[in-house]
Amino acid sequence: MADNAGRSTRRGRPGYDLGRLLDVSVRVFNERGYEGTSMEALAQRLGITKSAIYYHVSGKDELLRLSVNRALDALFAVVEEEASTTGRAIDRLEHVVRRSIEVLVTELPFVTLLLRVRGNTRVERQALARRREFDLVVSDLVEQAEAEGSIRPDVDPALTTRLLFGMVNSIIEWYRPSRGLRAEQVADAVTKIAFDGLRTGSGNPA
Amino acid sequence: MADNAGRSTRRGRPGYDLGRLLDVSVRVFNERGYEGTSMEALAQRLGITKSAIYYHVSGKDELLRLSVNRALDALFAVVEEEASTTGRAIDRLEHVVRRSIEVLVTELPFVTLLLRVRGNTRVERQALARRREFDLVVSDLVEQAEAEGSIRPDVDPALTTRLLFGMVNSIIEWYRPSRGLRAEQVADAVTKIAFDGLRTGSGNPA
Repeated sequence: MADNAGRSTRRGRPGYDLGRLLDVSVRVFNERGYEGTSMEALAQRLGITKSAIYYHVSGKDELLRLSVNRALDALFAVVEEEASTTGRAIDRLEHVVRRSIEVLVTELPFVTLLLRVRGNTRVERQALARRREFDLVVSDLVEQAEAEGSIRPDVDPALTTRLLFGMVNSIIEWYRPSRGLRAEQVADAVTKIAFDGLRTGSGNPA
Repeated sequence: MADNAGRSTRRGRPGYDLGRLLDVSVRVFNERGYEGTSMEALAQRLGITKSAIYYHVSGKDELLRLSVNRALDALFAVVEEEASTTGRAIDRLEHVVRRSIEVLVTELPFVTLLLRVRGNTRVERQALARRREFDLVVSDLVEQAEAEGSIRPDVDPALTTRLLFGMVNSIIEWYRPSRGLRAEQVADAVTKIAFDGLRTGSGNPA
């Protein structure tokens, strides 16, 4: 993001800085698919020439890299927050889940693009590698929470991480800021369901 | 499915019946995207001529319709099972979740295609409408379970349905039959997490 800001100031021209270029590009990538979008189509949608895009980035690849890194940087910033690194593992896990939902809602188009990356190019494979790294941090938290006895011992940490973030990531499929549901409300629902369970009065094996 | 079988017998030719045509087509659609796949590319992949495909179906649209209906028919069969229609709502809900996971695993490529449909054509919009209908059945079960006091009253039924099936549907992103994890094990993990919660000894408000 510092990168973005620096570039905008250094290389931007009035009306179209790199930030706004990314905003529009990501929207088009999400609509048409990254591979299905040509630089020509992007330029048309932006209402500028291709060379005006090349003024900001080296090509489509760099647009993708900057976009998915915006989502990834925000997610990695979450796992470095104090509440993610100190205290009981169960509380750190819950914090990471809640804050990830906030990132997802705040950076919705960027996270959407990230989650659709399939690994066809080097940039995409790097993004997938960073996603796996993030999953490992979460999976490690699940393991620590099992070890401290705060989450049920009969679920596999890797499988739990997948299902937990499957629920979190599914939010991109239907969340629309315009409908007035706040990130906090979604985070409350996710943590109620996944941490305390839907069933009433069941309690878990301690 | 009866439709498939009937056609295969009636219209099939040795080596390529409609069932096998669908299997391969769905794989190609999932790899390249439905819109990105031409009949030409399909024919090449199948190693047959385009007219050999037209012998079985009227076009790409019909391939898509038959494929997504295979997934949808299997899901709707689940909500009509006796265990989905009689007994306590919480148990019916759990049954629908478990059996949906089995369908997802058994019909993985077909459900994957269904979940990627975005509504660009009439066939896609019909599929989305049936998905919404399925969601309403589930959401109604959540509501009934709240009314009978068996699930927590402080979660919105529609939001809960989205998150619960967000977790279920996320399985298509990583599940590979070859890795030896059985549908039952995944279903156990999902129901443990979503119905009873990860947290130990918390219990829910009754």
